[in-house]
Amino acid sequence: MIQSVVIIGSGNLATQLALALAGKEIQVGQVYSRTLEGARELAQKVNAPFTNDLSSLAVNCDLYVVAVKDSAIREVLMNMPPDKNRLLVHTAGSIAMKELAPFSDHHGVFYPLQTFSKTRKADFSNIPLCIEASDADTLQKLQQLAQRLSSSVQQVNSQDRKTLHLGAVFVNNFVNHLYAIGAEILEHNQLDFNLLKPLIRETASKIESIHPLDAQTGPALRNDQQIAQAHLKMLENQPEFQEIYSFVTKSIAHFHQKQKNDLL
Amino acid sequence: MIQSVVIIGSGNLATQLALALAGKEIQVGQVYSRTLEGARELAQKVNAPFTNDLSSLAVNCDLYVVAVKDSAIREVLMNMPPDKNRLLVHTAGSIAMKELAPFSDHHGVFYPLQTFSKTRKADFSNIPLCIEASDADTLQKLQQLAQRLSSSVQQVNSQDRKTLHLGAVFVNNFVNHLYAIGAEILEHNQLDFNLLKPLIRETASKIESIHPLDAQTGPALRNDQQIAQAHLKMLENQPEFQEIYSFVTKSIAHFHQKQKNDLL
Repeated sequence: MIQSVVIIGSGNLATQLALALAGKEIQVGQVYSRTLEGARELAQKVNAPFTNDLSSLAVNCDLYVVAVKDSAIREVLMNMPPDKNRLLVHTAGSIAMKELAPFSDHHGVFYPLQTFSKTRKADFSNIPLCIEASDADTLQKLQQLAQRLSSSVQQVNSQDRKTLHLGAVFVNNFVNHLYAIGAEILEHNQLDFNLLKPLIRETASKIESIHPLDAQTGPALRNDQQIAQAHLKMLENQPEFQEIYSFVTKSIAHFHQKQKNDLL
Repeated sequence: MIQSVVIIGSGNLATQLALALAGKEIQVGQVYSRTLEGARELAQKVNAPFTNDLSSLAVNCDLYVVAVKDSAIREVLMNMPPDKNRLLVHTAGSIAMKELAPFSDHHGVFYPLQTFSKTRKADFSNIPLCIEASDADTLQKLQQLAQRLSSSVQQVNSQDRKTLHLGAVFVNNFVNHLYAIGAEILEHNQLDFNLLKPLIRETASKIESIHPLDAQTGPALRNDQQIAQAHLKMLENQPEFQEIYSFVTKSIAHFHQKQKNDLL
């Protein structure tokens, strides 16, 4: 059973995962971060030792979680003191599990399908935890750990995890950017972004009970060219917003036309 | 004081507004719809008479609400029996109030900034109701009515209302389409769309306390080209999704670069 975990990284995900583990009385044995400030900041929250030196990584912890940005994972692995017996996981959506194979005989993936920020405490109880492991023993250990945190533990292979991550980019990163564009459009005209919040809430709530295909409304669905032209004109000083407007509008029209045709 | 309302239209907005009014014991004096079935369906829900014939529109009601799609508003107005004393409003985001002037001396706009569906009961209590009126007396009547439904009553002119509607298209219609794309990506790969729902919920909840500019995360913000290329490749059979991916990714990078520069 996993009772102590080394957290490698101090970003949003590393922070929230460390807090969640500590909240379930799983010991955070050490926090590593590239910067000493980053390591200290997180370590203090979970009452753990910290370092910014991979050569002094704690030994004999039950699990090592590499929770750094995708492009830094390889460098971290290369600089860890070699130990093929270390139970090693990463937390990335789009990095194949096999990337860890050269560094550990017992490795896996522990991917929480959620967005995190440092300051907003994450409630792990409903977060889908997507688990993959190199062997049955590792799988069991990771599953047990995941079940202590969440009621939604999923066994997901590297290919499916990539697909989930791609979907997540659309419904999280891209959606948030549309919120930012909405805010910019209002604020540029001295209107309060708060006015859009009930609509944002309802748009998200709606799909709990209605499939987003059936929940679609608005001028693009009605193919209302007059509104679309007026909107594009309002955006003439923001060509990037115009491009997004055009492509998404076109995609809504095509997507729903296609659905109708498929039903015929 | 407005005590009886004629609802012209039987779509999502007309339905939910009629239900909300009836729920506050404001009489729905009549429901008109282009089709008799549509009129009957809504009228039965609010215990009102109904018609599909504009020439038999009820007389002597306190307010006439034109809640049909934008492109049908003008035709409805042209076919109503002339009565310049009728208190007349529309509910559209992007139609100027002055479009009603030829048809009534007391007119206005009653625009609920929300998305509606026929089957999902709307809670009006927090919906921003954007009010505009041709004269002070009409404004007061509309404000009183709005305040019975919602705690968020806003006086908004036609220009600002258009801006709000444009913002709403981004954070509602376009966001919903991104949900639909996420669902399609998962379902195409036999993955359960429910796995994305906690993420969708959190993405929407986050901006209650964090401005969307500060809430942005993900590969586009980190300018992670490797992930972007991999994602584009995964979408190679869905060129429209690819286009949206490219443009939104580019926009996120530019937008945040611009913010950083503005702060220097």
